[in-house]
Amino acid sequence: MEAQNNTSQLKIIPLGGSGMVNKNLFVYEYEEHIVIVDCGIGFPESEQLGIDVVIPDISYLKDKLKHIRGIVITHGHEDHYGALPYVLEDLDFPPVYTSKLVNGFAQVKLKEHGLLKRARLHIFPTDDSFSLGCFNFTPYRVNHSIPDAFGFFIKTPVGNIVHASDFKFDWTPVDGKKFEIGKLARLAQEGTRCLLTDCLGANSEGYTRSELFIQDTFEEEIENAPRQVFITTVSSNISRIQQAVNASRKFGRKVAFMGMSILQNTEVARNLGYLDISSKDIVPIEKIHSYPDEKLTVLIAGSYGQSSSSLARVASDSHTLIKLKPSAVVIFSADPIPGVYDQVGALIDKLVERGARVAYSEIQENLHVSGHGSQGDLSILAGIVRPDYFVPIGGSPRHQRAYAQLVERMGFARGNVLELRDGEGIIISPNSVEQKKMVSLTDVFVDGSSVGDVGKVVLHDRQVMAEEGIFIVIIKKDARGMLRDSVDVISRGFVYMAISDKLVGNAKDIAKQAIRNKKASDWNHVRGQIEKQLSGFLYRKTKRNPMVLPVLVD
Amino acid sequence: MEAQNNTSQLKIIPLGGSGMVNKNLFVYEYEEHIVIVDCGIGFPESEQLGIDVVIPDISYLKDKLKHIRGIVITHGHEDHYGALPYVLEDLDFPPVYTSKLVNGFAQVKLKEHGLLKRARLHIFPTDDSFSLGCFNFTPYRVNHSIPDAFGFFIKTPVGNIVHASDFKFDWTPVDGKKFEIGKLARLAQEGTRCLLTDCLGANSEGYTRSELFIQDTFEEEIENAPRQVFITTVSSNISRIQQAVNASRKFGRKVAFMGMSILQNTEVARNLGYLDISSKDIVPIEKIHSYPDEKLTVLIAGSYGQSSSSLARVASDSHTLIKLKPSAVVIFSADPIPGVYDQVGALIDKLVERGARVAYSEIQENLHVSGHGSQGDLSILAGIVRPDYFVPIGGSPRHQRAYAQLVERMGFARGNVLELRDGEGIIISPNSVEQKKMVSLTDVFVDGSSVGDVGKVVLHDRQVMAEEGIFIVIIKKDARGMLRDSVDVISRGFVYMAISDKLVGNAKDIAKQAIRNKKASDWNHVRGQIEKQLSGFLYRKTKRNPMVLPVLVD
Repeated sequence: MEAQNNTSQLKIIPLGGSGMVNKNLFVYEYEEHIVIVDCGIGFPESEQLGIDVVIPDISYLKDKLKHIRGIVITHGHEDHYGALPYVLEDLDFPPVYTSKLVNGFAQVKLKEHGLLKRARLHIFPTDDSFSLGCFNFTPYRVNHSIPDAFGFFIKTPVGNIVHASDFKFDWTPVDGKKFEIGKLARLAQEGTRCLLTDCLGANSEGYTRSELFIQDTFEEEIENAPRQVFITTVSSNISRIQQAVNASRKFGRKVAFMGMSILQNTEVARNLGYLDISSKDIVPIEKIHSYPDEKLTVLIAGSYGQSSSSLARVASDSHTLIKLKPSAVVIFSADPIPGVYDQVGALIDKLVERGARVAYSEIQENLHVSGHGSQGDLSILAGIVRPDYFVPIGGSPRHQRAYAQLVERMGFARGNVLELRDGEGIIISPNSVEQKKMVSLTDVFVDGSSVGDVGKVVLHDRQVMAEEGIFIVIIKKDARGMLRDSVDVISRGFVYMAISDKLVGNAKDIAKQAIRNKKASDWNHVRGQIEKQLSGFLYRKTKRNPMVLPVLVD
Repeated sequence: MEAQNNTSQLKIIPLGGSGMVNKNLFVYEYEEHIVIVDCGIGFPESEQLGIDVVIPDISYLKDKLKHIRGIVITHGHEDHYGALPYVLEDLDFPPVYTSKLVNGFAQVKLKEHGLLKRARLHIFPTDDSFSLGCFNFTPYRVNHSIPDAFGFFIKTPVGNIVHASDFKFDWTPVDGKKFEIGKLARLAQEGTRCLLTDCLGANSEGYTRSELFIQDTFEEEIENAPRQVFITTVSSNISRIQQAVNASRKFGRKVAFMGMSILQNTEVARNLGYLDISSKDIVPIEKIHSYPDEKLTVLIAGSYGQSSSSLARVASDSHTLIKLKPSAVVIFSADPIPGVYDQVGALIDKLVERGARVAYSEIQENLHVSGHGSQGDLSILAGIVRPDYFVPIGGSPRHQRAYAQLVERMGFARGNVLELRDGEGIIISPNSVEQKKMVSLTDVFVDGSSVGDVGKVVLHDRQVMAEEGIFIVIIKKDARGMLRDSVDVISRGFVYMAISDKLVGNAKDIAKQAIRNKKASDWNHVRGQIEKQLSGFLYRKTKRNPMVLPVLVD
């Protein structure tokens, strides 16, 4: 049954794209009430050269700014809150509701962008509900790889929605704060139209392990380390950092934090009471050289092998504050994410070459646990909520499919799992839930200080120049408006010009041929001729396709 | 004890680099006798933009061509024989000794490069030994992910060497041909100075499974497939292809081969008797559209997600010969190698989106076995050969280190494992074995039809243009040799020019300022000024660093 009145529908539209892991942004829209859940960044694909980050495409909201009642953030990972600095201004600074820790992180980020004063940041109550327009949000605490993470039970005019962003069940979490399973179960008794849920772990069998599992690993490694110990993890993984501190303390080591992101995050978390580290546990980085190696654990950024990270600089012996000693132990306590396997491997190789003992997940499995629920965790949530419809989010199509198969095995109807594709959202009316193409999304790129000015043309040019280089042909016109019989050629990234005199000479001859007796007013045609003929010539000679760029100057 | 006479030493020098997985090329040199073992390509690193392949640096051999007695190839993977077309001519076409299957592959490759007539290809005896100068080679058969793979027991004037390239032990190989363990054990009784051995699996516990393990998977998948079946694997994995054919036959399906590499390799292997497929088992690709889906298995290239592969074209519905149907089953029977995880994931997502059921290693572990031995296999070999010294090859430093730890646990002295670093080789004299820096190696790049003309400068330019684009400033000089007060600007890959009028205008003003009243003869100085000032200006305005390229024309 279709709803009769188009306006009495709830639309849920992912503006970061559906079937994606990152760039989370979900629009909840009912009549003139809009609430946004999450506002995160994504990462460029390998062919999107030079791009720093990708952000959600908010064009859908451009003429609806007045309807936006607020932005609600689930947790403090950049793919859930990191786009705030890039979109808040365009959205006319709607209020932003977060947990306490995310509020701390967001303040740092907005300050960097000079937006803190204009931003309207609020901390939502964790033991109450709050209303934004016609939506009533009740947060329930979840476990994840960062503290203070929440899902939401959302009452709407067309029924209840559970928005379960990234989560797992951890019955022995490092901060002692468990998934509020009872609270969610009570709420869910009222019935749920639709469950939006993390599906990234839908291919993983069993249950995701507790974060606490790592503690023993850290203790064993630190106890047995002869002298220097480095631990690297994702800088937002506050619980992991807490465990590294706990294990260090137990064996009489203080800690030092190295790397901007890890320094910032631990400072915010300490100030807000999310990290139990006293000042006497910490050795400031500028003092570590005067501190004995065997009394210190260095928590260092670079677990993804980033070439500019502190750990990479330590590995290449270019760090100004600390030197790696041959007896060092380096612990990688993070699984490489897609796209960084090679650089992590290369970093490990460098450390091994310099004599360090490196503990990494390929050789031991006790160094990392996921923040995302596996099939067991996902089944618990589905079993508690028992919604009419399932919408797997935060995963690629293969994870969405795996999730669909999982709940189908639990006895839910396959047709009630909506695997949204790019641009699709869902429409919920009193009598129906349907999946529909609702928006046409463009990748919005951040490059340097600009947002959105790099488009397909610029990226395509970068790609051609990256692979094959550029071959520039400069043509002049004379005072009578004729093209002059003299051609300059310059190239970069194509062939080493000094050893290609003959190639360049022949190319000039071809260009001269094309401009002979031509008028400058015919330039468009002549340019096309030069491009075509020179591209063909250069390909025949080199089997390469540089960008051929004829330029006319006065 | 050092050898007294420098010439009575055996040098073993990896010219593809030590601590590398690919680009295998080992020089064995004793006085005026040189034999080369393997001659393979490597793959560019992600920042080596536009490079097709990387080949070993053979400069060390340039003035020793007359000493080269031959090239001996272990097996038919491109990282072991694929550089032949790029180096044979420079090496004056020494004789090349291979097994029968590699001979077939090499003929195809050399023909493509127009070198077949001049190449001197020989098939080495597999049940005898053969001498090249002072070296006597006895091949022993190994198991790997390609048939007809061998290791060598090499008698030299300073003792015996075992060159164990890639291998595993497979007691139920698809072609029935087992590792000649008895032969090697007998030979090794004569004593071995040094074992060069595969170490890539040194982090994997236990024993690598038999290739036969895959047969059941294929049968189960094919038996249960409703209609269309695609299987994709590495095109050189002849045994895997045989198993796909066997399983298809069992359930009344013929096979079609799709993709150039898979067509070529299966043709060579069939002609030489390495694939048991009769013509009536095969449906030619041009006839598959008239053949019922449920009677056909399509063996298709693209297991690494390559965007131009047949499977990628099927996934994006742009293949001219075959359409993917929603009930299709697609089996990935290859583990993604480093560097391709993302593109494999994206390809699987596309197939899932189009309705296919995709079997891949993340969801089931029975789709692939490695061709490399795990710790168990490596221990068997070490235990049989019991050499004086170990040299782990074919792996990164972390694999070399893991290998060293493995044989140390077996009771061998840690000091007798030589973990060679880039440029290092070994020197074996009658009384000593030592590790030493012996060559300085450069990356030699193949790009298009040229070998070695792309160097650091070109690659650096490509990288800058890839990330930030290029900003070209054209300056003219007048008849009096003065720089003219008019500037043309053109850029690509930087910002979208049409929306940056102001930026371009300001940039022109800065350039004009720099050239005012300057002579063309001062160009070098002026160019430096323009570069510096414009780079600074553009970075301040955009936080991007394009290549600024001032060009002077008449």
